[in-house]
Amino acid sequence: MKKNLLVAQSGGPSAAINATLAGIIREGSHSPEIGRVLGGCNGVHGILEEHIIDLTAQAPKEEQLFLLERTPAMALGSCRVKLPPIEKDKAVYQRLLEIFQKYNIGYFLYIGGNDSMDTAAKLSAYFSAIGEDIRVIGVPKTIDNDLEATDHTPGFGTAAKYIACSMAEIARDCAVYPIPSVTIVEIMGRNAGWLTAAAALPHHLGITAPHLLYLPEQPFSPESFLQELQSMQIGHSSVVVAVSEGIRLENGAYLSEQDFAGGVDAFGHGHLSGAGKVLENLVAERLGGKVRSVELNILQRCSAHLLSQTDLQESRAIGASGVQAALQGKTGEFMVFQRVSNHPYRVEIQSVPVSQVANREKRFPTQWLLPDHQGLTRQGTEYLLPLIEGEAQIPYLNGMPHHFRFNFSQPAIL
Amino acid sequence: MKKNLLVAQSGGPSAAINATLAGIIREGSHSPEIGRVLGGCNGVHGILEEHIIDLTAQAPKEEQLFLLERTPAMALGSCRVKLPPIEKDKAVYQRLLEIFQKYNIGYFLYIGGNDSMDTAAKLSAYFSAIGEDIRVIGVPKTIDNDLEATDHTPGFGTAAKYIACSMAEIARDCAVYPIPSVTIVEIMGRNAGWLTAAAALPHHLGITAPHLLYLPEQPFSPESFLQELQSMQIGHSSVVVAVSEGIRLENGAYLSEQDFAGGVDAFGHGHLSGAGKVLENLVAERLGGKVRSVELNILQRCSAHLLSQTDLQESRAIGASGVQAALQGKTGEFMVFQRVSNHPYRVEIQSVPVSQVANREKRFPTQWLLPDHQGLTRQGTEYLLPLIEGEAQIPYLNGMPHHFRFNFSQPAIL
Repeated sequence: MKKNLLVAQSGGPSAAINATLAGIIREGSHSPEIGRVLGGCNGVHGILEEHIIDLTAQAPKEEQLFLLERTPAMALGSCRVKLPPIEKDKAVYQRLLEIFQKYNIGYFLYIGGNDSMDTAAKLSAYFSAIGEDIRVIGVPKTIDNDLEATDHTPGFGTAAKYIACSMAEIARDCAVYPIPSVTIVEIMGRNAGWLTAAAALPHHLGITAPHLLYLPEQPFSPESFLQELQSMQIGHSSVVVAVSEGIRLENGAYLSEQDFAGGVDAFGHGHLSGAGKVLENLVAERLGGKVRSVELNILQRCSAHLLSQTDLQESRAIGASGVQAALQGKTGEFMVFQRVSNHPYRVEIQSVPVSQVANREKRFPTQWLLPDHQGLTRQGTEYLLPLIEGEAQIPYLNGMPHHFRFNFSQPAIL
Repeated sequence: MKKNLLVAQSGGPSAAINATLAGIIREGSHSPEIGRVLGGCNGVHGILEEHIIDLTAQAPKEEQLFLLERTPAMALGSCRVKLPPIEKDKAVYQRLLEIFQKYNIGYFLYIGGNDSMDTAAKLSAYFSAIGEDIRVIGVPKTIDNDLEATDHTPGFGTAAKYIACSMAEIARDCAVYPIPSVTIVEIMGRNAGWLTAAAALPHHLGITAPHLLYLPEQPFSPESFLQELQSMQIGHSSVVVAVSEGIRLENGAYLSEQDFAGGVDAFGHGHLSGAGKVLENLVAERLGGKVRSVELNILQRCSAHLLSQTDLQESRAIGASGVQAALQGKTGEFMVFQRVSNHPYRVEIQSVPVSQVANREKRFPTQWLLPDHQGLTRQGTEYLLPLIEGEAQIPYLNGMPHHFRFNFSQPAIL
């Protein structure tokens, strides 16, 4: 008897996570070995509450999958729940087993970041230990690109494209007046500078902005920053600075927790500003002149209208490969990209044991940074460019993107 | 002998302002009555410094104009300079006359907001007074849509489209977790709510967000806001609130200048937050729970990759019409849109005396707002929808938008 496939999503949103889901639904629906493709709503949290819907029934047509893969943020909802170690709570695992058996699940695909891979590891270990042939495969997703063991992560390419495009547009906006100005653009990336590095890609088109680039991988010195800024101001009227939200001082403290004015509010709370705002205040205080900060905000992770075609295709393919891995009998593995070449750009998808997902972030290689915060080396640029290449065709309705929604109120019928 | 046409831009950036410029260059270059199409760099400020370039020479091909009209922010640079009244400084006017005569200018088109129209008015009055046949036409531009005498302004449609699209994407992002949350989205619009109104357009697609809408045209009550929010939270786990940066308390003070904690920094400066941040702090303090604010930032005015096809076509056409008006002998006029119908959507372009540009902003009609901050009436929606309709085809290079640049260092040769 055919087993069903269960898929769920977890962790923080990305613009391409539903492309992975669509890839899984297509592959699963076409496989003669798989019964239904079911979806768990709100990740493992929802599965534990038996919140399961029938994806083959709700999205049987290609037109729906076309919309789905261009819809940002988890179409199946998400959660930020990590399974406890089995020694601490065996009941959770037994409950999951019950539910999987009730829904005749033979394959479970979990799409998400580090916590999702951790869940996949624990669950697959449990099923193997009790001799249950339920195959668990992790499919990565993160805009931060900080997952070890993979060349890059699904979702990163679109976030990087959004940042590079925004930087090109902001550079035009900032340069219109004939008076000197400083614009500080704050980009996501608490501990790793992959996203901020993407801000330097406009250099490849001959655009001078951003003129300075600060990643969390390098200790930040406010005094050096002011000097570097003043040097730049000699040659450029409008200076644009790209900084990670996670830049840190020499002593390891996040810049975003500093307030050079040392002010506190009536409750004694220090004033927490983002790194961009702290730098704006610093420049205003020490150098004067026109200065502003721009925070790129959550649109960095949900701007599906700017989906990178590369990211879309790869996210779709890695989902499909996850299904194939499960059908081949693999379990406790997660899917990764291996870059074969840059010219032409080619990747292969493989699976590796989930144990290879470390609990540490993969940092941006500082050897890919030019000295004096000037931007990226050719190697850094060549790594990033293919990931932002191509513009996905986006369907619009009345001028707004046409998204797809599952009906969470329609449970799967057994 | 053929006279030359001079065009310049001023005021704040928009995404479609170069479409107007391209329309002027095309119309001017094709007209048998016009010699060269010249551009003043950095508005009237640059013209006074004789910073003039030859646009017909620098952008003779359609492929260049195609790129130009999809490039955000003034390709000719901008300024925020208003001409003084002639009684105060006649020399400035005489200097401009000298320069116009030197460059054989018969037609001057000035693209911009209120200050630009004011400049056009003063300059045309001066030329008329001294019997000089130099025709001055103002061509409007503003993302705020607050210019009287015109149905809407060039640049507004794209900003509105950006806001509506962003709201649809943010709504997906905020709704992924199974825990209650409040997301406050702050939108540009210091005194008029046109841009914020556009945030409600996703309702037309059946999207529930934003659940609450606050415009500057209505006095803001923090207590009522908290009650309205709590009511919404009963029916919706993820509540999205759209607010103008310019919402004001009953006493007229901007909310963005309030700090309910009453804190000051070490220099005695009150902590100025945007309206979104003030509301985020208020909700955290009074209701608790997960709350965040998102500021839509300057991308609202320079996101040319999301150009509304309607805005692009109209911005182009209004530039061309400005040239035609000048050729017809008009002066001291500015170009406006008159909406003929909604179904189908049709506008006509006309010219009106610049004196009709009041020094006040056109407010969003409160009768187009549903009660209790629930969104727009059908009339409000029907007004806005056509302006965001259609997606301009955008050229990309290596994954980033392909922009056009003039060479400011190459002056016009007389």
